[in-house]
Formats: sequence, C-alpha cells, structure tokens
Amino acid sequence: MSEKLKTPMIVVNFKTYTEATGKKAVELAKQAERVYKETGISMGVTPQFADIRAVAEAVEIPVFAQHIDPIKPGGFTGHVLADSVKEAGAVGTLINHSERRLKLADISEILSISREKGLVSLVCTNNPSVSVAAATLKPDIIAVEPPELIGSGIPVSKAQPEVITDTVRLVRKVNSKVTILCGAGISHGEDVAAALKLGTQGVLVASGIVKAKDPYAVLREFAEASKY
Amino acid sequence: MSEKLKTPMIVVNFKTYTEATGKKAVELAKQAERVYKETGISMGVTPQFADIRAVAEAVEIPVFAQHIDPIKPGGFTGHVLADSVKEAGAVGTLINHSERRLKLADISEILSISREKGLVSLVCTNNPSVSVAAATLKPDIIAVEPPELIGSGIPVSKAQPEVITDTVRLVRKVNSKVTILCGAGISHGEDVAAALKLGTQGVLVASGIVKAKDPYAVLREFAEASKY
Amino acid sequence: MSEKLKTPMIVVNFKTYTEATGKKAVELAKQAERVYKETGISMGVTPQFADIRAVAEAVEIPVFAQHIDPIKPGGFTGHVLADSVKEAGAVGTLINHSERRLKLADISEILSISREKGLVSLVCTNNPSVSVAAATLKPDIIAVEPPELIGSGIPVSKAQPEVITDTVRLVRKVNSKVTILCGAGISHGEDVAAALKLGTQGVLVASGIVKAKDPYAVLREFAEASKY
Amino acid sequence: MSEKLKTPMIVVNFKTYTEATGKKAVELAKQAERVYKETGISMGVTPQFADIRAVAEAVEIPVFAQHIDPIKPGGFTGHVLADSVKEAGAVGTLINHSERRLKLADISEILSISREKGLVSLVCTNNPSVSVAAATLKPDIIAVEPPELIGSGIPVSKAQPEVITDTVRLVRKVNSKVTILCGAGISHGEDVAAALKLGTQGVLVASGIVKAKDPYAVLREFAEASKY
Repeated sequence: MSEKLKTPMIVVNFKTYTEATGKKAVELAKQAERVYKETGISMGVTPQFADIRAVAEAVEIPVFAQHIDPIKPGGFTGHVLADSVKEAGAVGTLINHSERRLKLADISEILSISREKGLVSLVCTNNPSVSVAAATLKPDIIAVEPPELIGSGIPVSKAQPEVITDTVRLVRKVNSKVTILCGAGISHGEDVAAALKLGTQGVLVASGIVKAKDPYAVLREFAEASKY
Repeated sequence: MSEKLKTPMIVVNFKTYTEATGKKAVELAKQAERVYKETGISMGVTPQFADIRAVAEAVEIPVFAQHIDPIKPGGFTGHVLADSVKEAGAVGTLINHSERRLKLADISEILSISREKGLVSLVCTNNPSVSVAAATLKPDIIAVEPPELIGSGIPVSKAQPEVITDTVRLVRKVNSKVTILCGAGISHGEDVAAALKLGTQGVLVASGIVKAKDPYAVLREFAEASKY
Repeated sequence: MSEKLKTPMIVVNFKTYTEATGKKAVELAKQAERVYKETGISMGVTPQFADIRAVAEAVEIPVFAQHIDPIKPGGFTGHVLADSVKEAGAVGTLINHSERRLKLADISEILSISREKGLVSLVCTNNPSVSVAAATLKPDIIAVEPPELIGSGIPVSKAQPEVITDTVRLVRKVNSKVTILCGAGISHGEDVAAALKLGTQGVLVASGIVKAKDPYAVLREFAEASKY
Repeated sequence: MSEKLKTPMIVVNFKTYTEATGKKAVELAKQAERVYKETGISMGVTPQFADIRAVAEAVEIPVFAQHIDPIKPGGFTGHVLADSVKEAGAVGTLINHSERRLKLADISEILSISREKGLVSLVCTNNPSVSVAAATLKPDIIAVEPPELIGSGIPVSKAQPEVITDTVRLVRKVNSKVTILCGAGISHGEDVAAALKLGTQGVLVASGIVKAKDPYAVLREFAEASKY
C-alpha cells in the first residue's frame, strides 16, 4: 500500500448520499484532504463510480471505488470493471460492503483482480468469523461492521467491543499483515480512540461524517483522536 | 426526448470492453459524434459509470448510463444512483440489459425514477412477449435483443426477423409512442437497413462497433444505411 | 384451470412459518380442505417445497409450490424444477412473490414452463402497473399485494383500495381472462368481502390464517364472506 | 457426524436431473443404499427439496438437502428453511454449490443454523484459497470442485491434482477436523482412488453416477476403489 495509506487511517464511505454526490462529493473529499494535510492522519474516500474521476482529479488522498465486479474486460453491460475505476483515478476498492454483499467465490476473484491491477483491497465483514474467512484471502484491509449498527449512531466500540477484539485476535492467527478497521455507528472522536485502543488500525465511517453539519470539524476530531 | 434522440437512432453500448474504457471511451464517443455531425443520424453512447463524466464533457451526443439501481439517495454502497449519473452528464440510461437483467418490480421502480429525474429510459428485452410487458411500463425506448445472438455477428434481422416483426406488432397494441430498437449481431449497414425495414426505429449495437477495426467507418456505414 | 380453482378463491401462503412446516403444514391444509368441503369456496395452499408431497397426499384441494426456477432438467443444484414439484403433487406455483422477486425475463420463462407442464401460474405483483405488465405475459392468476402491507394486519382493501380498483381496471384492458386476486393485511371476513366488491376474484393470504389462533375459524369466516 | 458419515464417503448430487427426480430419485437412492450395505462405504444422496421426504422414507443412508437459505422461520416465501428439510428427513445440506453460489455472510449464517439444527454441513468451494476461507467457518465437510470440470468427464484428480493437494495442505493449517472431499469430472473408480490418494476423504459426484447407464455398477466400482 502507498505511503498515503499508512495507519491509523480513516476511510469515509460516501455511499449514495446526496451530501456526497457530484460536486458535493468533490467538496467532501477536499475536506478530508484538508484534515489529512493538517494532521498527517491517513484519509481515504469512496465516491460513487461516476464521481471517481472528478474526486481523484481534485484531491491527492486515496480514492476508493465502492465496489468492483469479478470480471475481466468484455461483454458485461452495467458492471464495474477494475480497469475502469483505476483509469478514472481510484487506487483501491471496497469489496463486500454490507449494502453490497458478495458471493465468497466472487470476493476471491475480485481480490485476484485487485492484486493484478494494483488496487488496494478493503473487504468489509460482519462478524469475527467472517473476518477470519476474509482475512485468509489476503486482502490489504478488512473492516468489520455489525450491520445492525450501521447508520445507528451507536458505536460498535461501545455496543459490541467484543466484535472488535475477537476480530483482531482471531484474524491475527491467520494473517499478520492485513490492516484491520472497524465501522458502524462511529460519530465522535472518542469512538475512534476506542476503536484504536481495542486493537484496530482505523475506522470506516459514513453517515457520521457525510451527514454531519460540519464534516470537516468531525473529521478533524476523528483525526486528533487517532493520534494517541 | 431531446432533439438529439430523434429517430432513426443508433445506440452504441460500450459494455466493459477495453476498447471502450477510459480514454478510449472518449475517443469512441467522438467517432460517434463525428458520424452524427456528418449524417444527422442520432447517435447515443453508453460508457461505463466511471467514464460518463469524461465522455459527456467531450461530446454533444446523448450519453446513457449502462444501468441505474432502483434506489433513492441514502445508504446504498456500491449502487448506482440516478442523480449521480445525471450530474455526471448522462441524459438517459439502459435498463435490464441481458447482461444485467433486473427484477420486474425493479424495472418499474427504475422507470419511475427515470421519469422523475428526466432521464431517457431504454429498456432491453429478450423476446416479443417480454417486450410487450416492458412496453406497458412506458419506457421511452425498448430494444429487443435475442440473448443468444448478442456478440455472435449473426444479425437478428436475418436470423430471427419474426422476433422483430412480432415485437413491433405486439408492442404497438399496448404502446403507440415507445421507440423500438433491435439489437444483437448487427455488424453491417445492411443489418441496420433490414432492422428499419422490419419496423424498428434504430439499433442497439456493441461489439459490431466497439470491436471493429475502424469504428468510425462502420458507424458511418450504419448511419448511411439508416437514411433510407 | 381445474374445477377446484373456480372463483372466488382463497389461496393460503404457508411461507416458512413454523405453524405451517412439516406436520403442521399437513394439519393446516386439512383445515383449508374442511372449509372447502363445507362451503364450496375454492381453497389453495402453498406449502414449502419439502412439504408438497405430504400435503398433496393428505388433501384434495389444489397445492401450489411457492416458487419454481426458470430451468429445464439438468445441472442446477439447489434449484426448484417444475417437474419435481409437479410429481410431488403440486398443481400450480406462486411466481414472483414479494419475498422472492424475479427478473422479468425469468417470469416470462417460468410462465412458458408452467404452461408446458400444465401447472397453474399465480404471479404476484406489487402495484397496478406491474400487474398490467405481468398480465400481458398471460399467467392464470395474478395477485396484487402492496409489499408494505404484507403481514401488517392492515387490509389493502381499506388502506389502498385504489391499488385494487386500478389493477382490475388496467389489467382488464390487456387481459380479459386472468383471475385477479389481492393480498396483504387480510385478516377478517370483511376484508375478503371488500376485496371481492372492489372487483377481485379472491385473496392471497398468509399470516392472517397461518398465525391465527384458530385458522379453521378464520378461513371459514373468509369463505362465508366470499359467498356474497 | 453420524456413524453413517464415516470416511471415506461418496456423496451423490442428484441436481435437477430427470434421472434423479421423483420416483427416479427414490430408485437411485436405493442403489446407493445397496452399495453401502454391500461394501460398508458411506454413501450420501442429495435429492431435490420436494423429493427429500420420499427418499428419506425409502433409505437409511444419509440424505442431504441441496441448499438451505440463511433464514429463521417467518415470512420467506419460496425459501428453504432448515427446519423444513430436517423434518422431511434430511440429516445435512449442501451449501454454496457452484450452481448455487452464496454470499460469504450467508454461508456463515447457514453454518450457524446448521449447527443449531444438528444438520451436517457440506460446503462446496472452487479452489484452494476459497476452501481455506470456508474451512475457517468450521463446516463438517468441504468439497472442492473446479467449476470448469463439473460435468466434463475429466476428473479433477487428473486435470488439476494440485487443486486437491493444495486444498488439503492449506485447509489442514486452519482446520484439522473438517472432512475434505473433491469433485468434478469423476466417473471411474480410478478417479476416486486417485482422489483419496491425493489426500481427500471421499468424493462429491453427480452426472458420473446420475447419468450412468448403470448407476449401481458405477457406484459399486467407486466404493471398491475407496477401500484401498
């Protein structure tokens, strides 16, 4: 992974929120970049496919696709080709987000494609045992998120700290290199600090930033909380 | 539909072909635009999601997304939001291509969204009876394509002319306005002429153009064949 | 359709409720049969795949599968073959229930298979325009159910009567033969009477019967309400 | 696992073949049972859902479902509930067959349900690394099958022996207990012997038996080849 993906890292998932679509995606990415420049904490952003190019042209922080399909170039109308998001400026991709769950064989294939294309792979998982299974497939990053907490405002680090600690403990038995993030319900700096204290190397966050009145302020708070 | 979508029309589906990805997508779209300017025959192009913006900025002909999801803005990681492709420059979208078949209820929902957002809707179908079902949902355009002929080089107008004539005849009983295209295996001007003669108002074409040695020449041939 | 499927008809969807699994599926089907014998009102039941045989052996009323796949015999592990449910005793099948939505092309294919195999086809739909699209594909029966009312206890005939009247009115423009049912939230005899009064020929019901303390009593109430 | 599932074992996947549907499913299962009784080699059969009950009533060898869904009892029309196939007589289930690939999170959930219900779990995989990922989820059995060889008549043990040896070697690093089978293209006794020699504990076979002129003879040959 590139220098800009050193840990701790904060990855902001833009999803398909209005506040993170089109011009607003570019604005939000710039806020994340500003926090990166001010604090040195790694920031990643995941705009929608059609916004990758504009975002990647506007900022220097890593841009991830939200998904790629397990395909090679060819007749796959409506699919997302790795080459396409890469040429548009993505340096990596989310895989298997809880809102875009994938078949096991497809995750394996997408990871092969990501390695071949030099894309950073971030596989989302829903519990410790799925995290272990995913970790054996050697992604660059995994992010464990209990689906029921996504968008809830209740941080996983408080509601289900054992999900994080079990994930870290069990994943390390099969994969010593993968970067481990957690997500779901993270909306304050203390949630980020708690996540790091529980053994992760960063967070995957969405509505906590995208829907915030002042995304810059919250991201800055997250970054400061990541320093200790 | 806009002036630029008057019939006859030729819609070039870029799929996820290498020859139509990234910079090459922009090049190919420019060839289609050139033919439009030289002949006055309507040309549409359907680049991949991540290429919509660059293509739409480069050409004046209509740009279609290859797919949109039946979603409103919100928590839908890895999905394709109508607002996103529209802001990137798409004026319409393919729906239900044989390589991205959709649930009936989702086609209905996507058509509602397309109307609400002012996107031109082009629903793909696989046979006359499915064409009729789709036509009752009031899309702007339907394109009937027997899946087994897609990419075959054997034109539907020759192999299964009754698919076209039945589609035109039966669709007109339930929908007098929808533009009817056909596709699959179209690679020569005579195939386009045959399609129009059988009652369609244009063609949906992919590999016949994208994989051609000289896409401009073939598109020009198609356009000339559309004039009579 | 067989004599036993004359209208008005009441189709009880067993779903995967514990109260309608295994032996309990057989018991419930017998209650429906008893009501049929006492009232003469047509009753259909839709047990789970693994219960079709036992239910069909136990009762004389029509047994439907809950789904079949768009496949011919062959290598399709984990799929549901028409021949299989037919040989087990099913005389028909639900298609496209809101909990098992299908692609448009697959609905079309399943209807072809149903006709070929002599299975009664009951296509579920979610709104009037989807009902029209489905009706053009010539199923034997359609059942319109607003998904948000399923299992709600709020009858569609009260909450959204226009869904029913629009469906009946618009479907009749394209298909004069199809039997039209409605469903969702139906739990009292008056809901059934209202559905018939609004122009349907029966109801598709699930939790209102399956979860009732005395399914026989409620079904009997439904049947009596169907007589006028 | 039960006594009847001791290794080596031969699991015959009935798929949706005509030769293994309805009465023919019962006949075929009886042939497998006969070979078990004559040779003592474990035999499992996987009839279609609607045939589970009749097959389980007819034979004493273990009957597997071809798939179950990641659901609890409730409103899931057209789905396959563990309780349902269990009450019908299944003692286990295939999971994630290449013709019914599943999402990673769903495989995890189905395995939890299988354990809770006491069903033997047999997870199919397509290559060594997916086998390792699946093995970390602690199924009872995994069966690795290169999809391109399924139904080919070319045995995996000959065409891609390294798929088998890599699977055995890598899976054993994370799971010492799981039974490892292989499949795809197996049609002769020597293929079975080769599979066992390469470190597996049995085979998953479909067309090699189901489509054989004399399934009993071929199964008997498989069983004899398993003895050494």
